[in-house]
Amino acid sequence: MSSRLRDGGQHSNVAAAVDDFPIVGIVGGSEIARLMTPAAIALGVGLRLLASDRKGSAAQVLADVRIGSHDDRAALLDFARGCSVVTFGRKHVPSAHLFELRAAGVRVRPSVEALLHNQSRITMRLALSAARLPGPLWAQLPADADVEQVTATLCNFADQAGWPIVLRAARGVDEAWGSWVVHDLVEAQRVMQANPVSDESAWLIEERVEFVRELSAQVARSPHGQAVSYPVVQIAKQDRIQTEVIAPAPGLSDETAIAAQRLALQVAQVLGVTGILTVEMFDTPDRLLISDLAMRPHDSGHWSIDGAVTSQFENHLRAVLDLPLGSPAARAPYAVTVNILGTQRAGLYSAYRHVLARDPALKVHLYGKHPKVGSKLGHVTAMGDDLDDLLVRAHHAADYFAGVIDE
Amino acid sequence: MSSRLRDGGQHSNVAAAVDDFPIVGIVGGSEIARLMTPAAIALGVGLRLLASDRKGSAAQVLADVRIGSHDDRAALLDFARGCSVVTFGRKHVPSAHLFELRAAGVRVRPSVEALLHNQSRITMRLALSAARLPGPLWAQLPADADVEQVTATLCNFADQAGWPIVLRAARGVDEAWGSWVVHDLVEAQRVMQANPVSDESAWLIEERVEFVRELSAQVARSPHGQAVSYPVVQIAKQDRIQTEVIAPAPGLSDETAIAAQRLALQVAQVLGVTGILTVEMFDTPDRLLISDLAMRPHDSGHWSIDGAVTSQFENHLRAVLDLPLGSPAARAPYAVTVNILGTQRAGLYSAYRHVLARDPALKVHLYGKHPKVGSKLGHVTAMGDDLDDLLVRAHHAADYFAGVIDE
Repeated sequence: MSSRLRDGGQHSNVAAAVDDFPIVGIVGGSEIARLMTPAAIALGVGLRLLASDRKGSAAQVLADVRIGSHDDRAALLDFARGCSVVTFGRKHVPSAHLFELRAAGVRVRPSVEALLHNQSRITMRLALSAARLPGPLWAQLPADADVEQVTATLCNFADQAGWPIVLRAARGVDEAWGSWVVHDLVEAQRVMQANPVSDESAWLIEERVEFVRELSAQVARSPHGQAVSYPVVQIAKQDRIQTEVIAPAPGLSDETAIAAQRLALQVAQVLGVTGILTVEMFDTPDRLLISDLAMRPHDSGHWSIDGAVTSQFENHLRAVLDLPLGSPAARAPYAVTVNILGTQRAGLYSAYRHVLARDPALKVHLYGKHPKVGSKLGHVTAMGDDLDDLLVRAHHAADYFAGVIDE
Repeated sequence: MSSRLRDGGQHSNVAAAVDDFPIVGIVGGSEIARLMTPAAIALGVGLRLLASDRKGSAAQVLADVRIGSHDDRAALLDFARGCSVVTFGRKHVPSAHLFELRAAGVRVRPSVEALLHNQSRITMRLALSAARLPGPLWAQLPADADVEQVTATLCNFADQAGWPIVLRAARGVDEAWGSWVVHDLVEAQRVMQANPVSDESAWLIEERVEFVRELSAQVARSPHGQAVSYPVVQIAKQDRIQTEVIAPAPGLSDETAIAAQRLALQVAQVLGVTGILTVEMFDTPDRLLISDLAMRPHDSGHWSIDGAVTSQFENHLRAVLDLPLGSPAARAPYAVTVNILGTQRAGLYSAYRHVLARDPALKVHLYGKHPKVGSKLGHVTAMGDDLDDLLVRAHHAADYFAGVIDE
């Protein structure tokens, strides 16, 4: 513990920013913070990271790293002091700590109130329903509900929405955890018993939506209300982990694209979001339904690093610093981004010789992670006007990195 | 001194790269190393910096920094150990040290032999003349030449080339230092007395070329000989400091563009360069003449960060690592890059509100330097198809940062 403190102290000597340039504190050392680093370097603003260790995806590339847990009140407060503003690369900072940060005079962006909607899917659904924003039918069940209560609630809900239904933990460990499609009462009870949610959480019950595809609409919003909308993208997932993004969503009518952007702007305003807001939606034959939110740069916006005039990461920094936002316009007719997922056979550096030689125009972003099955190790983006070609190229590269194909 | 050593030691714990990913050592903490950082982060390769202090442009943003001087043989050797390859963000590492690095088994790229041409303008001119590559007429004078020798050499040279002539220190302190246009013998002698070159240096005498404009051709070349050529750009200078780049050079015929690229490729091959080679040329009514070289990413290629598929920094890293090179193709019809030069009135962060609001599509890169009169504080790049508009926008922003205009 003392070595950790010493470590933190010593790094306070690092000149993270010069003159009147601000320091943005970011909590959580995931790839989100790593991918934000180039934008901070370009703008000349300091980026100070609170991370659990020095080997994480972001900590290994940032100069100004404090070691500590986002769960540790004292570490969080100590970290926040001296930051011009604090923002987040992860979801689950305890709400009590967030209120304490604000009470201590720390500028937290997005605001504490906005973040509450990001932390509990039930709080999010309540706010969206109150604002009459479209989403699936939903209901809730407390973590400690007894069998009778569970049975009654599920049966009532299924009467309206029909089976199958979706069970979701109100607070997930991460985005990919905590969602199950269940087809009857027995299966629902089995899932709930096998995956108990914590006392602080609850069960969110949602209608299983028959969608054509999933979309994501991102906006950046600054504290004084300036907002910009990125092109609406199409996302594909495997086991709830995003695998592919096409920007813009192919074949999307102008009408639906504008409706999706408007929806995201409404959510940003209703929830008072500062920074990047990601709104995932189900594209159904008759309308758009909000499926999920993230109040920070998100996988579905990684295409913007190479594909947009201003990346989601640069606009997140600009927004939390209350600087004028940059153009979110696309730089190519299409950008296709495919995630590289860890497998038993993933070999990243050794794949470069093949991948880079085969496709000199491909953009590769690796996250500095040791390959672990199922984890996001990086992404590739291909840009141009021939969508089929871009899809083939991006998937080939991602598969080759993952060791799924040999040539 | 002991604190410096401690500092260096502690940072050896930083995980600069995971698994089999290489670590590229870069000597010199200038903006060149800073601007290389995003490319290293994307590729997932480690970047380890040797810098004189922690507040420099690159040291403030890199995780893996060793404090030491490039002049200090022991510091350099210690730094190089553990790096997969060592490259340079500055010109003037003593040649003896470079040979020692190689003798110690360190992979130095560009090679020591190639770098010699980068360190002395006379060595460069000798090699280019030997290869019959076009350049201005030139002659040399040792640092300790007596008055008679100076007079004879200058008069003989002026008989061929005519006055005025250009006097250049064979080894400049930096690129902007050490060049004088002199109009007669008296002025030449006055300049040489007032600006004595060191014993290790000499005087290079060059024809004053009447050029239409200056061009820069960049190539990236890998150890096994793969090479790519960037679009040829037009550069403008003030007091020998580059102020403006237009990519590609407007109105350049395909024939001349190809000739310039071919010339740069020839130089790269003749000198055995690995990495980025920058060849500055005079565009004269009848032919191209090589005016200067740099064996590393260079100001005249900063446009490529936002304007090319693969930036000069990414291709430098790929080349020194012997990875396949990326596409150097331009992403917009024109990119205009203007340097931000320090003035008494420069206010950088406070300029953001105006600059970013006025031009949401502008790309800004600041180097983390405290404003000093005449120093390069950053650059801006505007991209699009209306060259006049791009020039106005980029110069306006750079002037506003520099405090030269108020609105």
